[in-house]
Amino acid sequence: MLTIAIAGAGAMGSRFASMLSDANINVTLIDKWQEHVKTINERGLLVEDNEGKKKVYRLPAYLPENVQQTFDLVIVFTKAMQMNDMLSSLKRVITKDTLVLTLANGIGNIETIEKYVPKENIIAGVTVWSSELVGPGEIKLTGQGSVSLQAVTSANSTAVQEVVNTMNQAGLNVSLADNVLQAIWRKAAFNSVLNTLTSLTDANVGEFGQTSTSMRLADKVLDEFEIAAEKVAVKFDKQDTRNLIQSQFGENGNGAHYASMYQDLHNNRLTEIDYLNGYVSHLGEKYHFDTPVNSLLTDLIHAKENLNQIRSSEN
Amino acid sequence: MLTIAIAGAGAMGSRFASMLSDANINVTLIDKWQEHVKTINERGLLVEDNEGKKKVYRLPAYLPENVQQTFDLVIVFTKAMQMNDMLSSLKRVITKDTLVLTLANGIGNIETIEKYVPKENIIAGVTVWSSELVGPGEIKLTGQGSVSLQAVTSANSTAVQEVVNTMNQAGLNVSLADNVLQAIWRKAAFNSVLNTLTSLTDANVGEFGQTSTSMRLADKVLDEFEIAAEKVAVKFDKQDTRNLIQSQFGENGNGAHYASMYQDLHNNRLTEIDYLNGYVSHLGEKYHFDTPVNSLLTDLIHAKENLNQIRSSEN
Repeated sequence: MLTIAIAGAGAMGSRFASMLSDANINVTLIDKWQEHVKTINERGLLVEDNEGKKKVYRLPAYLPENVQQTFDLVIVFTKAMQMNDMLSSLKRVITKDTLVLTLANGIGNIETIEKYVPKENIIAGVTVWSSELVGPGEIKLTGQGSVSLQAVTSANSTAVQEVVNTMNQAGLNVSLADNVLQAIWRKAAFNSVLNTLTSLTDANVGEFGQTSTSMRLADKVLDEFEIAAEKVAVKFDKQDTRNLIQSQFGENGNGAHYASMYQDLHNNRLTEIDYLNGYVSHLGEKYHFDTPVNSLLTDLIHAKENLNQIRSSEN
Repeated sequence: MLTIAIAGAGAMGSRFASMLSDANINVTLIDKWQEHVKTINERGLLVEDNEGKKKVYRLPAYLPENVQQTFDLVIVFTKAMQMNDMLSSLKRVITKDTLVLTLANGIGNIETIEKYVPKENIIAGVTVWSSELVGPGEIKLTGQGSVSLQAVTSANSTAVQEVVNTMNQAGLNVSLADNVLQAIWRKAAFNSVLNTLTSLTDANVGEFGQTSTSMRLADKVLDEFEIAAEKVAVKFDKQDTRNLIQSQFGENGNGAHYASMYQDLHNNRLTEIDYLNGYVSHLGEKYHFDTPVNSLLTDLIHAKENLNQIRSSEN
């Protein structure tokens, strides 16, 4: 049986850990939040399920610098901007056989992992599972989800199939994608529209959708994603992403929901902007094409992050 | 002696009226705000000066549609987006001899006035006088100021000199500019940076100045102003505008001040965006050059205006 580490045991990482643990799979939590790690070791991970039923999971938890053992699979569940730090701490325990899976939002995560892990050991994917972090050592599950993943190269297909099987034993609803980069870009483009624009206009998703300029703004962001995707030879279907965005605005959509970036900014956390709009801007610099829209939006979100820091240092 | 109408008797228009009246110049107020007009006619215009001393000015006030007499000079003091409505109402009393002066913020006001007034009767300028509207029929003066103005053509130089002399009798500190369009563009570019970017980042001027991306964002806005100014043959000095903006961030600047657009949005009023960033975007469409930055910013501010409308209609 695979031994699994969850590197970044926030809301999502803890959710995956609890589901894997329910299937009797050997899982270890790794997180840099001291109080969280301490609480999990002392009291256990407290998980409230969809029906409000609470259960305690006795799982080993470590600060990254204290991990000694190796794992067959490390699922990196930090946010994109914390991934480099996490992998740098875990470098000591990543062997030539360790598989590393990322389901993190944003583009550019595979490049980050490649600095520490041979390409043939990297698996990437997207997920629509969700969860909320209630406090140190405590999460709340929200709804059902699925995972779509693919190895970055075809070298380790047997091992990857074992990962899929193991995760499916835990009910994680995993399927093998045949173009995972397309799925990652689709989700990143979706978030680069809804996260960024609702944060700047200070709206929830439904309200933003009602504004007269919402889809014109969306198109400006997506047009540059289309150019960027072509430059790096990733398949990107602008119309399909556009439809997905519009579907969020309707009655059955995600109307009253505040996007994660909006919540990050309102809670004085850094955002994933450099792995969303900022990544298109980065590709523009690298491959010499213009990205005025995504570059401007990236600068505006960084200004908002900065303002949070300025204000909290004044208090 | 000149007879003067103030068309748009808000904070600034009322301030000019009170100063003209102090110099015994015949001045009439015109405004579309019914309660304001009623209060001025019944009680008089109440003006609190810099020292907190209050004085009542008995001045005639009219709704635009009720004005019957003609004037030698109409000073249009509405915001840019209300100017067309105001002039359309006053069309009946604008003769071939009526001079019309605008000191309103933004680019494009001369074009609006030209629809109703022969070019040789139009005077344009900028002012740094300021004032606050306290409530209907009541304003509060804030500090000292000056006016710089110029006729749009040289046809009426004697009449324009008379306007300058009359306004200077009232202490309005008026000088004749030799390139008023340059001054208007400079002020509009300044406002297109500080008004728009502080509104989107939700900051006061000083806070915005402390962010790491503030001047990079400013440059992106100003670069397009530079191109637009060249297309319409207006002199525009980017570096000078940039310095003026930076001077606001320092100790002696305007740090704790929230820009007028920020205040407009927080008070559910429409903004002047179409006469600031939006005008550059409009010129881009007209003369076929790209304005991705100012177009995007215009769309974002319109989205915020829209959100205000959506939210207030829900209450």
